[in-house]
Amino acid sequence: MSKFSFKNDYSEGFHPQLIDALAKTNLEQQEGYGEDVFCEKARIAIKAKTENQNSDIYFVSGGTQANTIVITSALKSFEGVIAATTGHINVHETGAIEATGHKIILVYSHDGKVKPEDIIAECERAEDHHMVRPAMVYISNSTELGSIYTKTELTALSETCKARNLYLYLDGARLGSALSSINNDITLADLSKLTDVFYIGGTKNGAIMGEAIVINNDNLKADFKYHLKQRGALLSKGRLMGVQFYELFKENLFFELALHANNMVYKIADALNEKGFTFITKPESNQIFPILPNDLIDKLLLKYEFYIWQKLEDNKSAVRLVTSWATSENKVDEFIEDICRD
Amino acid sequence: MSKFSFKNDYSEGFHPQLIDALAKTNLEQQEGYGEDVFCEKARIAIKAKTENQNSDIYFVSGGTQANTIVITSALKSFEGVIAATTGHINVHETGAIEATGHKIILVYSHDGKVKPEDIIAECERAEDHHMVRPAMVYISNSTELGSIYTKTELTALSETCKARNLYLYLDGARLGSALSSINNDITLADLSKLTDVFYIGGTKNGAIMGEAIVINNDNLKADFKYHLKQRGALLSKGRLMGVQFYELFKENLFFELALHANNMVYKIADALNEKGFTFITKPESNQIFPILPNDLIDKLLLKYEFYIWQKLEDNKSAVRLVTSWATSENKVDEFIEDICRD
Amino acid sequence: MSKFSFKNDYSEGFHPQLIDALAKTNLEQQEGYGEDVFCEKARIAIKAKTENQNSDIYFVSGGTQANTIVITSALKSFEGVIAATTGHINVHETGAIEATGHKIILVYSHDGKVKPEDIIAECERAEDHHMVRPAMVYISNSTELGSIYTKTELTALSETCKARNLYLYLDGARLGSALSSINNDITLADLSKLTDVFYIGGTKNGAIMGEAIVINNDNLKADFKYHLKQRGALLSKGRLMGVQFYELFKENLFFELALHANNMVYKIADALNEKGFTFITKPESNQIFPILPNDLIDKLLLKYEFYIWQKLEDNKSAVRLVTSWATSENKVDEFIEDICRD
Amino acid sequence: MSKFSFKNDYSEGFHPQLIDALAKTNLEQQEGYGEDVFCEKARIAIKAKTENQNSDIYFVSGGTQANTIVITSALKSFEGVIAATTGHINVHETGAIEATGHKIILVYSHDGKVKPEDIIAECERAEDHHMVRPAMVYISNSTELGSIYTKTELTALSETCKARNLYLYLDGARLGSALSSINNDITLADLSKLTDVFYIGGTKNGAIMGEAIVINNDNLKADFKYHLKQRGALLSKGRLMGVQFYELFKENLFFELALHANNMVYKIADALNEKGFTFITKPESNQIFPILPNDLIDKLLLKYEFYIWQKLEDNKSAVRLVTSWATSENKVDEFIEDICRD
Repeated sequence: MSKFSFKNDYSEGFHPQLIDALAKTNLEQQEGYGEDVFCEKARIAIKAKTENQNSDIYFVSGGTQANTIVITSALKSFEGVIAATTGHINVHETGAIEATGHKIILVYSHDGKVKPEDIIAECERAEDHHMVRPAMVYISNSTELGSIYTKTELTALSETCKARNLYLYLDGARLGSALSSINNDITLADLSKLTDVFYIGGTKNGAIMGEAIVINNDNLKADFKYHLKQRGALLSKGRLMGVQFYELFKENLFFELALHANNMVYKIADALNEKGFTFITKPESNQIFPILPNDLIDKLLLKYEFYIWQKLEDNKSAVRLVTSWATSENKVDEFIEDICRD
Repeated sequence: MSKFSFKNDYSEGFHPQLIDALAKTNLEQQEGYGEDVFCEKARIAIKAKTENQNSDIYFVSGGTQANTIVITSALKSFEGVIAATTGHINVHETGAIEATGHKIILVYSHDGKVKPEDIIAECERAEDHHMVRPAMVYISNSTELGSIYTKTELTALSETCKARNLYLYLDGARLGSALSSINNDITLADLSKLTDVFYIGGTKNGAIMGEAIVINNDNLKADFKYHLKQRGALLSKGRLMGVQFYELFKENLFFELALHANNMVYKIADALNEKGFTFITKPESNQIFPILPNDLIDKLLLKYEFYIWQKLEDNKSAVRLVTSWATSENKVDEFIEDICRD
Repeated sequence: MSKFSFKNDYSEGFHPQLIDALAKTNLEQQEGYGEDVFCEKARIAIKAKTENQNSDIYFVSGGTQANTIVITSALKSFEGVIAATTGHINVHETGAIEATGHKIILVYSHDGKVKPEDIIAECERAEDHHMVRPAMVYISNSTELGSIYTKTELTALSETCKARNLYLYLDGARLGSALSSINNDITLADLSKLTDVFYIGGTKNGAIMGEAIVINNDNLKADFKYHLKQRGALLSKGRLMGVQFYELFKENLFFELALHANNMVYKIADALNEKGFTFITKPESNQIFPILPNDLIDKLLLKYEFYIWQKLEDNKSAVRLVTSWATSENKVDEFIEDICRD
Repeated sequence: MSKFSFKNDYSEGFHPQLIDALAKTNLEQQEGYGEDVFCEKARIAIKAKTENQNSDIYFVSGGTQANTIVITSALKSFEGVIAATTGHINVHETGAIEATGHKIILVYSHDGKVKPEDIIAECERAEDHHMVRPAMVYISNSTELGSIYTKTELTALSETCKARNLYLYLDGARLGSALSSINNDITLADLSKLTDVFYIGGTKNGAIMGEAIVINNDNLKADFKYHLKQRGALLSKGRLMGVQFYELFKENLFFELALHANNMVYKIADALNEKGFTFITKPESNQIFPILPNDLIDKLLLKYEFYIWQKLEDNKSAVRLVTSWATSENKVDEFIEDICRD
């Protein structure tokens, strides 16, 4: 690609430290299917951060896989999962959840977040066996619109779910960025207490591939490997994910990479702010959605790649800009310059 | 693992040339989801071997995923796939095929192979809409019992399938070993003509992970990406597979690695033959199934890992020994010595 | 039930003429599974009304069954069906559609109807293989809110669907009432031209059970019996439905029964109108939704059964009143008197 | 049909007493969806026979529906049901079980019965999460080959299932005939103790349609209505089944009808025996499988309808002859005469 891309956070490969670790351990014979020593070390490293020795941890190769398996393993066939209209499982997974037989019960969201009152309303509507029974709530953090949950918000969701006998599941495809946000007050240890299950996204934060599913609720633990195998997610060389997650979590690499991504996007957001541009959601994580004049957008698209999110009035559009652990500060500065010169 | 393992062909990581290629291309920005230049180069390299410019090629992360997606994408909801009782989809995929709604129509096999007469019999049984309609035949090469198909056998299957309006699908988890077998007379170009779809297994032959699905029949091509995405198989960093498969196929690495695996297991088979041991199927590919006295097995298990396949009479058992691209000849020699000394 | 019920249109059994016909033909030996002469006669009688000799007609025992089988038989696994948020398949079928693996793509509706612009918007959103592809539109006539489509509206939907390569499917659970509505300008012959498939509801209009699925589009015809059998809908004694539908359609009984139901509800609606009460949707078919003071509702509930549909402000609620072929005019008059006396 | 049919036991409608009862109760307003007083009375009548006040009873319209809902409601997504190769769910339901995502784990049967040792073998094979976990055993009584289980056999199956943590499910499509067999020593009360769930077939024994699912194991009771609704089996006018089953079970009509069917087929079997013909399974229930010379078969087919079951050597074939509650003794005598005259 000749133009520099702010299209997404998966345009580059993996952090060099992860490749090195793979190379170094490559010829050690290991058990297959996630029973290797690297997966075990990665689990221990993650549990040190979640401060929960009782969670079960599994590694899968992508977010759609994680979402599908977590949700279908938790629900009975007539149960559904509540999600925001903007949720990844509703919009961008080609019906993967429905393909396992489950309804996504939609609540309208303008900012990507689910609210306790929406959950309560859906539970009250579902009065008998003629309706799908809500049994889980799906949220993402950061959301598909770049927003993040506060600890107060997450606690309220957690309490609502407990009161209504719903599992709370957090999709952490971009959890690193959320937990490293300037507005964040949540820790991995909080997540372990406030959710029944969540996953830590590796693919979008330094890994070539891999998501770590962390199961906190005992009810969701039994037989999870059967679900992994049945849905094609049990890699025979699970070491690929074990080695990477161990590197990411043995110290603080995971958070350092996310912080870099956020800092890069904040730099852009600050520049846009200064120029007087507004955003469709507040810049908090590594995805921002500024509203720009169409002619500026056209000019930028000659040198950069990014998505036009939404056409708006007055010859303006919202665009999506995404940074990652690999985004070079030089390119960010160049991009800012190109905006400011305008 | 302190003991040397002949348990399987996925105990080690990937061939060093593949890691090097990943490291070298790591920071180039690329399109996601298999649209990167490496996947494209890999497709071109594979098509040069299959001699079929019209096939569509997709990369997925494992064999169960490949089988599930190929089969469910090809069948209508009331159609089933014929397979041997020994077939991987029947035995070792936790009902992944049935989980997508399809019946596996079983034909009994003692050697892992499906025969034309079994296919014909099932088609004739399925007379009307009260029965599942057979629409595909699943075979594996090499089979789960280490046997391989001859070109004559494969041609007969292909003709039977055509005559009965069935797709022929070949699971090539261990295709490298099959095509490098001393008894093999099939080429990738033959496969491209004789099957409607097959996959080339990377995971068990040099890759850390990855299978290349090759679709030859036009009917099976449309919308395949939808199936990949819906089943969680569309990796955002598809480059991981593109880079590896390009290395394996740009010259002959794929076949060289398979030949090494075969040569290692043949050395063991020859030694066992010489000692007068028999096998439950003829040694042809990188899995052999010798019948050994239980006390010899017990002694070997002190130093080596392998599976006991089947308890037999007279204090004997069949065991499964597997070699791979990474199996060291020293260890093979040591193992032979340990047998012969007995 | 000691109170008279306006709760629904399935509180009584079947029209006496249907029982008589069953009794009279009872001991004739017939082929099973819908291949009997009565089903055949019913098909001929229905085709005389639809004026389409080329449609295929099948009988199933209920509406959820009809919806599930029609939709799943028409869609590929990654395709979805567009429906109103109020649609029966979305609200009151316990996720039956999703249980076959398909997403319902929701468009918001306040009156139960789907509009062409909503369909177009969903088609434009679904840009690639990361999203479910819309392939069918589901509407009901009369709708779940008692409203009916005009011929102009239905024609516009039909054209929109054709232009976007979508099947148009009409759920006719209460089709009799819709086609007998004072505002109706659609015929069965129109439906046969304007939809790809629809069903004629017997259960709610004189039959003890049975819905007639009418398939107009050739693409949807092949193999339909396989779907019926796989989903448990192929009754061995299909004559039960054949005999009933022949009676309903050999002359005009089906429409006479629906007209009676409508006339009964119109009488109530007129009385309510005269008393100055309003409705949440215009009274058109055999379900009306008047807004009444809560104390009047409480008084009526002492003598009658009906559902409170929605709590409103000012001590009022919307209620649902339903009449059927079996509703006695005496009871209707008594009910009106009880309202007017208030 | 101009020829008299011994093809099946569903060629006629329902027993006149059932029609009369439907006619008499037809206009009483009743609750929908199986909550009517007739269903309740039928439940009480059945429980008086099963001597189990704690079972839950639901009525559905056909056998495939019963099998699908019972099995899918009992199994987790990765669990399977053990059945004989001859089992109806394996052969003649168009993959209905697999369509809900579950594998049928096959055990070979020559006489239609499942044996404890087959169950044990399958449980021992299924060692870990790479294989489908057996969780239920499906048997039919009478079987698809006309054989019946003895109390000793059923007790052994029941104990095997309990020891292996498997549910035992009995498909009673032809339970009336089995329990009325000359060789039977099982009662409905025994079934209630020895199985976890079974169904009593009405359609093939006097009803126009209807099967009564009797759930004995508490684990299988919760939420069953959700499954019924989701799979399209909750008829809005459930009274149709309630009225019929009340008539069948308020006294002994169910058994009287089955006894008639058996007596008719025994008469034929005795005549065939006397003529020296043999059978592929012992005549016990209302389906018999005599082996006849092909020229005799051809002659009989001029006057009667029945299925040729299997072509055999020496110009012979096995045929299937089926009688029902409605089979006239005159026709049976005529058929016997036609055989004997030969």
